[in-house]
Amino acid sequence: MRIVTLGEAMIRLSPPDHVRIEQTSVFEVQVGGAELNVAAGVVRMGYTAEWISALPQTPLGRLVHNAVRRLGVGTSFLVWKPAGRVGLYFIEHGASPRPSRVVYDRAGSCASMLGPADVDWAKAFAGAALFHTSGITPALSDSAAQAVGAALKAAKEAGLSVTYDLNYRGNLWPPEKARRVQEPFMQYVDVLITSEACAEVVFGVREAVPAAAARRLAERYGFEVVAVTLREAPSVLRNRVSAMAFAGGQIIQDDWYEVEIVDRVGAGDAFTAGFICGYLEGDLERAVRLGNAMCALKHTMVGDMCWAEREEVEQLLAGGSRFTITR
Amino acid sequence: MRIVTLGEAMIRLSPPDHVRIEQTSVFEVQVGGAELNVAAGVVRMGYTAEWISALPQTPLGRLVHNAVRRLGVGTSFLVWKPAGRVGLYFIEHGASPRPSRVVYDRAGSCASMLGPADVDWAKAFAGAALFHTSGITPALSDSAAQAVGAALKAAKEAGLSVTYDLNYRGNLWPPEKARRVQEPFMQYVDVLITSEACAEVVFGVREAVPAAAARRLAERYGFEVVAVTLREAPSVLRNRVSAMAFAGGQIIQDDWYEVEIVDRVGAGDAFTAGFICGYLEGDLERAVRLGNAMCALKHTMVGDMCWAEREEVEQLLAGGSRFTITR
Amino acid sequence: MRIVTLGEAMIRLSPPDHVRIEQTSVFEVQVGGAELNVAAGVVRMGYTAEWISALPQTPLGRLVHNAVRRLGVGTSFLVWKPAGRVGLYFIEHGASPRPSRVVYDRAGSCASMLGPADVDWAKAFAGAALFHTSGITPALSDSAAQAVGAALKAAKEAGLSVTYDLNYRGNLWPPEKARRVQEPFMQYVDVLITSEACAEVVFGVREAVPAAAARRLAERYGFEVVAVTLREAPSVLRNRVSAMAFAGGQIIQDDWYEVEIVDRVGAGDAFTAGFICGYLEGDLERAVRLGNAMCALKHTMVGDMCWAEREEVEQLLAGGSRFTITR
Amino acid sequence: MRIVTLGEAMIRLSPPDHVRIEQTSVFEVQVGGAELNVAAGVVRMGYTAEWISALPQTPLGRLVHNAVRRLGVGTSFLVWKPAGRVGLYFIEHGASPRPSRVVYDRAGSCASMLGPADVDWAKAFAGAALFHTSGITPALSDSAAQAVGAALKAAKEAGLSVTYDLNYRGNLWPPEKARRVQEPFMQYVDVLITSEACAEVVFGVREAVPAAAARRLAERYGFEVVAVTLREAPSVLRNRVSAMAFAGGQIIQDDWYEVEIVDRVGAGDAFTAGFICGYLEGDLERAVRLGNAMCALKHTMVGDMCWAEREEVEQLLAGGSRFTITR
Amino acid sequence: MRIVTLGEAMIRLSPPDHVRIEQTSVFEVQVGGAELNVAAGVVRMGYTAEWISALPQTPLGRLVHNAVRRLGVGTSFLVWKPAGRVGLYFIEHGASPRPSRVVYDRAGSCASMLGPADVDWAKAFAGAALFHTSGITPALSDSAAQAVGAALKAAKEAGLSVTYDLNYRGNLWPPEKARRVQEPFMQYVDVLITSEACAEVVFGVREAVPAAAARRLAERYGFEVVAVTLREAPSVLRNRVSAMAFAGGQIIQDDWYEVEIVDRVGAGDAFTAGFICGYLEGDLERAVRLGNAMCALKHTMVGDMCWAEREEVEQLLAGGSRFTITR
Amino acid sequence: MRIVTLGEAMIRLSPPDHVRIEQTSVFEVQVGGAELNVAAGVVRMGYTAEWISALPQTPLGRLVHNAVRRLGVGTSFLVWKPAGRVGLYFIEHGASPRPSRVVYDRAGSCASMLGPADVDWAKAFAGAALFHTSGITPALSDSAAQAVGAALKAAKEAGLSVTYDLNYRGNLWPPEKARRVQEPFMQYVDVLITSEACAEVVFGVREAVPAAAARRLAERYGFEVVAVTLREAPSVLRNRVSAMAFAGGQIIQDDWYEVEIVDRVGAGDAFTAGFICGYLEGDLERAVRLGNAMCALKHTMVGDMCWAEREEVEQLLAGGSRFTITR
Repeated sequence: MRIVTLGEAMIRLSPPDHVRIEQTSVFEVQVGGAELNVAAGVVRMGYTAEWISALPQTPLGRLVHNAVRRLGVGTSFLVWKPAGRVGLYFIEHGASPRPSRVVYDRAGSCASMLGPADVDWAKAFAGAALFHTSGITPALSDSAAQAVGAALKAAKEAGLSVTYDLNYRGNLWPPEKARRVQEPFMQYVDVLITSEACAEVVFGVREAVPAAAARRLAERYGFEVVAVTLREAPSVLRNRVSAMAFAGGQIIQDDWYEVEIVDRVGAGDAFTAGFICGYLEGDLERAVRLGNAMCALKHTMVGDMCWAEREEVEQLLAGGSRFTITR
Repeated sequence: MRIVTLGEAMIRLSPPDHVRIEQTSVFEVQVGGAELNVAAGVVRMGYTAEWISALPQTPLGRLVHNAVRRLGVGTSFLVWKPAGRVGLYFIEHGASPRPSRVVYDRAGSCASMLGPADVDWAKAFAGAALFHTSGITPALSDSAAQAVGAALKAAKEAGLSVTYDLNYRGNLWPPEKARRVQEPFMQYVDVLITSEACAEVVFGVREAVPAAAARRLAERYGFEVVAVTLREAPSVLRNRVSAMAFAGGQIIQDDWYEVEIVDRVGAGDAFTAGFICGYLEGDLERAVRLGNAMCALKHTMVGDMCWAEREEVEQLLAGGSRFTITR
Repeated sequence: MRIVTLGEAMIRLSPPDHVRIEQTSVFEVQVGGAELNVAAGVVRMGYTAEWISALPQTPLGRLVHNAVRRLGVGTSFLVWKPAGRVGLYFIEHGASPRPSRVVYDRAGSCASMLGPADVDWAKAFAGAALFHTSGITPALSDSAAQAVGAALKAAKEAGLSVTYDLNYRGNLWPPEKARRVQEPFMQYVDVLITSEACAEVVFGVREAVPAAAARRLAERYGFEVVAVTLREAPSVLRNRVSAMAFAGGQIIQDDWYEVEIVDRVGAGDAFTAGFICGYLEGDLERAVRLGNAMCALKHTMVGDMCWAEREEVEQLLAGGSRFTITR
Repeated sequence: MRIVTLGEAMIRLSPPDHVRIEQTSVFEVQVGGAELNVAAGVVRMGYTAEWISALPQTPLGRLVHNAVRRLGVGTSFLVWKPAGRVGLYFIEHGASPRPSRVVYDRAGSCASMLGPADVDWAKAFAGAALFHTSGITPALSDSAAQAVGAALKAAKEAGLSVTYDLNYRGNLWPPEKARRVQEPFMQYVDVLITSEACAEVVFGVREAVPAAAARRLAERYGFEVVAVTLREAPSVLRNRVSAMAFAGGQIIQDDWYEVEIVDRVGAGDAFTAGFICGYLEGDLERAVRLGNAMCALKHTMVGDMCWAEREEVEQLLAGGSRFTITR
Repeated sequence: MRIVTLGEAMIRLSPPDHVRIEQTSVFEVQVGGAELNVAAGVVRMGYTAEWISALPQTPLGRLVHNAVRRLGVGTSFLVWKPAGRVGLYFIEHGASPRPSRVVYDRAGSCASMLGPADVDWAKAFAGAALFHTSGITPALSDSAAQAVGAALKAAKEAGLSVTYDLNYRGNLWPPEKARRVQEPFMQYVDVLITSEACAEVVFGVREAVPAAAARRLAERYGFEVVAVTLREAPSVLRNRVSAMAFAGGQIIQDDWYEVEIVDRVGAGDAFTAGFICGYLEGDLERAVRLGNAMCALKHTMVGDMCWAEREEVEQLLAGGSRFTITR
Repeated sequence: MRIVTLGEAMIRLSPPDHVRIEQTSVFEVQVGGAELNVAAGVVRMGYTAEWISALPQTPLGRLVHNAVRRLGVGTSFLVWKPAGRVGLYFIEHGASPRPSRVVYDRAGSCASMLGPADVDWAKAFAGAALFHTSGITPALSDSAAQAVGAALKAAKEAGLSVTYDLNYRGNLWPPEKARRVQEPFMQYVDVLITSEACAEVVFGVREAVPAAAARRLAERYGFEVVAVTLREAPSVLRNRVSAMAFAGGQIIQDDWYEVEIVDRVGAGDAFTAGFICGYLEGDLERAVRLGNAMCALKHTMVGDMCWAEREEVEQLLAGGSRFTITR
């Protein structure tokens, strides 16, 4: 089964170890973006994925293209611009009591200039099973928001399932605009993925427990499923993660994983990837558990993607081992 | 307000990660020294600072000079020698149950040869608000001790406040000499900064609780303030730090921070920097809290300096966040 | 006193930090092998050691030779082949909930082709006090198993003490073969070193507590001592280790160390090295404590060897310090 | 137009700079193999390519797979084995008067075990324009030689053009065997690519000038084209390269490029890639010039592949610039 | 004597060695910009310099600030913006026949938004001897061009000498605009520095020899001096450089240096720095020779600045040594 | 045959590539020293060597010890001090027209405090064939000079051949003292090794051609052989090297090698090592040729030692190859 995602990918520059951006003499290079991360995650689990975005025909655009291909994600519907920027972001890794920090330099990127007419949506969705995007994409620009609207509509018309990660980014737009732009999208969405905080900021849904928030969202917008990622952060380098979903009046709640954090970026996208795999297999409980396991594993990996193998995820679900696997 | 500090800076060479000195094929280069670290810390908080020391006109002397300038610390009163050594120290980072280890190679450095006549103290202190040095400087050599004496006297004459970090280093001198040399300095000191252990080793002050030791020191030497840094070390890579001060018959005690240690060196100097800022702002409680926050943050940073920004320190004081700050 | 060990050493290739093998653009190079690690450990404690193995006369064989010499381990009885492979292994370092992983590429190495006639055992053992090997060596090939048999017999004839680490590797042979090949060796063994798991897999010894397993092994095979390493793993990066020994009807049990893991590989070999030192000094309690301390320290060091100094081990046994040692 | 190549790729491990293998503490990781390099080269020039080989389902196998995908080379016909080796090679970079050195550890790789029945050749060649392999592939094993035979026959039957790089490797087979095995292949070959030395060693063709050798080869085996790469090596780090071709009784000879060598490996494969592009465009003179330009450019790039862009190659053909191109 | 320069500095990101941008997993970080490079160069020679530009109050802005301070260049007149971009550029180092390549990502930087009212020019120029800027600054934006106009006028009014490097960048503006904007500036310029190519592109001055072009420029615009940098490039990694000046009807021509290129960027700025030093010392011949020597030395240094010491430059002028200097 | 050498080894710290000391954020670690380099060189050629020196029992002392053992050089006669310094030196690599530069920080090292009574010379020389030291050792201190005197006398008494490299270091002593101290040593020397420049500075021997200088030295001091290393330096990164010897009234002159310089340090010591091998084999012509070949090869290797293999040296003597050796 083929999944299609739409969104921006950036070149990520991070100082080594816990060095600060100000201090560094070197940046390690990664490529990441919420929807690309999801596409990569489902490919790791054995599915086929296509990532739709725009890149310039420059060494930096090709650097991103290479990274996407390396992960086995399809690039047939990439929009190539003769020139322009690739968005950048800088991350420095914290330790208690210093939080990690992200600095964006993404304004004016080729991806932010994507418009609804840049892609032949019908062709892109032909034969695909599911379309995924997130609240970052419409936040990039008005034309990008229109592209998201066009894509969602086309996906539905083509009979695809649609997952949508609310993914609110306060540096890209204010809550009111996020709500105004995205509410019309919700009619096309089958599965909404969100954290408690995003749901509150964007849709004003605040409940005592996440299950209640999920239920309210489902009822308000008619989602088939609302999945919520959960996190407790006793320190910067050790967190606990879990996830739950509300569907058909039922709550599915997974256990908590203790995670030793190597790199937190992309953990939510790893959840989404795992969730999508279970969802496509028609098993919601498995979807939550796969998502949560991939999310937990992502914290231990360098870069924005979850480089887990299917076999590792299954082993973790089956009880895991803290010792060395020998082959 | 301008702060002036006096002391040695060394080139620090550390193997990467947890590699041992014996094993390493590479040393990472940092520059540090107690009083330079304090100067850097107050500059980070928005003050002006001048660091007084001696360096040789060699590539290694210039390497130190460059590092000091990079931090925005003033170098107008540096004493330049046509030749000579820069002190070195080597550090390897431990993990439980292996402690971190420091190896010094600092004997005969230009800084250790500083004498009272090398600096025009009156000129250096003109317009300054505060002078800071530590017990490492007089331990370097007899002439350095005389320079400290001359500096303290001149600072007082120029109307500066004086802070003094006891900073006992057993590899530089024995306790009795440390006491004999430093006791005459105490008359010039407004604020004594110390750990419990240093106070006991140098001045023989041993009490059941740090508050009592601080009070005794204040009473014996007539300090305006005695500030004490506190530490609990359940493991090599996780500590708890706090601080307290005794002044005017009152005890100020801050809360404890849990710290995930990236690099412990210079944490005491970060406390001193923060304390000085609050002290100059005339708020002792804030001084203790600023110092403790900078000390806690320093543990998460690579190198001897606390590269925190004012805004970060304020955020930590205001409750902090363990999540990623997005700009 | 001189110790002789027999076994294979491999070149170890590991991505930096927590990078996965698939992702890496660089491998860090180490050399390791169970019996070489033991030889290195006893040399660190002040003994003399000779390591017997086979290497090809290629840059890779010389790379191993250089690493062994660097550690001060004797190489006079190395068997040099004009060509052939050096075994390799790849390790990636995990973090909870992702276990560390080892991938071997060791088939067909020169060491695996060692035969009983390749070494003049009498000459190698002349003047030596103790011979050590492990269950990995006979698992390499039939000829290697024969070499182990010849070595054990010759060691006993030469009056050496013999220690044997059961060290079961499931990727090299099945349990039944491991038992069948190794049982005849046990008559030559004075000290058996094992984990609970290895004892169960190879000799079918399963008891409620390790002490009982040790006793049963000692009684069944007539060992002078059975030493058992113990481990609890609350997370991938934090473990607790301890050790015990059964000898003369007595159980010796050491305390537990909390370890912050830098690199777990070789921890068992570090135990063996420490144990051997205490055993040769005629003090079994000290043997267990030295072994456990070296095992705990090994977790904090990069590479397969325990680079502790005698003085550090003694300090740890005497209570240790979590602070920086200053010299 | 789609090109299909068949051969082995290895993981290449090289010490940084001019460090020797024996000395190194780190290996830089690349992936390369003659036919993969050719496939990558034609993709860089805008063509589509598929690489046929075998890999194990291990992290090392996936590392190779990732590298191949990153280059945009198709992997649909890869043969995946559940276990097994990836071949390795080690390279150290010389400087006059020390030559560069390659050490292979490739015996027993999955690719060497490829057999004629492992691939559905008809399917692989459907719609393709050209098949390329080299003399390394049949040298890997008898089954690999049979696979090459089957592939060549199938390619011809499917109407593809066939290019063959003689690529003699003395460490894989003796000259007589190389000739005996490969002569029957020559009937399927349209374009033979070789150096003077290879032609002499394998086919015993020794002439005063390369043009004469090319002519004799063409006449003996009925090749449409014989292309010969030429090299002069005044020093290890500076060479001169050129190329010529014999076809239809004509000699095409390109000019010489002075090259400053960063990494020589794969230069011949870069020639082949460029030649194939020109050949498919139906212009033999352009084929030689494109091949020679890509070969020259390859010397300046790290790794086994020629990462040139089409535009750069055209600029070089058009006269080039030694100055910085600014975009 | 104090020099003031005005212009943009960027963060420069370069892959190590000769790795291409597309391939890299790491970028080395430098800071550079034509006028900053000049300021740094004159500081290295013992002068005082102030660099005027704009930076955002972000970690990236501070990274630049730190780098500037490290070099000892004054930053008192920096314009700090609360947010915004730092311009970036990427460089990959070539080798024959592949030229080095620069990719800019500088649009919309804080520096490009500088306007004439952002700086108190009179204050900035008080007590200064010379003002320098280049043709890059007015090319950044219309407001930046106005700032340059205001600065030139103010500098002249304050009695400073003015040097101007024509520094044409085709990716920033077309030749006609470059001429139209800059011609009015020329009335304020005492010393024009240019390459032959720039003079032709911007001012349409094409002569058979550089001396003639310099004379024509001097006559047309009334410059006191026209200095021209000269370069021959037999290969990417080996060049020959020289320089000449026309002043008072006289031609001063220095000898040629053979340079082994480590990093070519900033070589022209190093010339300007050296020239300014000699010019301020009132010796035009020395100005040309100092500039040429610093230019030659710059080619051997990593980063955009010439880190030469005064003593080294003098030694080179005095005949130099190709051997190791021992101190 | 066993060779014994006496001298200091230092830890060498060098910035990567062509980075300057002032700029660097990292130092690469090597160990080197003239007489240690010679010992390492003869071991590479298959001889046995013992290196006599003094080291402190610190991590830095052990780092040196490890490096020496790694090379296979014997350390049985090392003098271990409970504390003290290891000498350091810093090197930055130049490129034309910037020479490479060495900065020493070696004063007060343990090796410089060696005295004649620290070593049991008779025991050290028992069974040895040749003793080697250089003019650096007596320059370290008066006691070190006495140790050299004692060693030379003891070596002669024990029947060893003695080689002596004049190796004048102007930063350690003035020419007159170098002559005064060393002239009495010359009676014990069989083979003097020198450059033309050293011979002139120390012994005032200046002749039109090196052969004449060698003859004069041989006649004045009665040396069996005088060997002279020759160098031409058209650029910093490309040199030409050769060597000659005068013995028994005959001149032996080898050809010139063009060398592409990776690291020049230790090239003279590599010559000495090669010369000693040939000398011990009783073939002076071969001694010169071996020495010259090892010297040429050393220029291409990182660090102070010549890591050539015997086979490589023989291949170079036999004509060499500029191409890749494939095994």
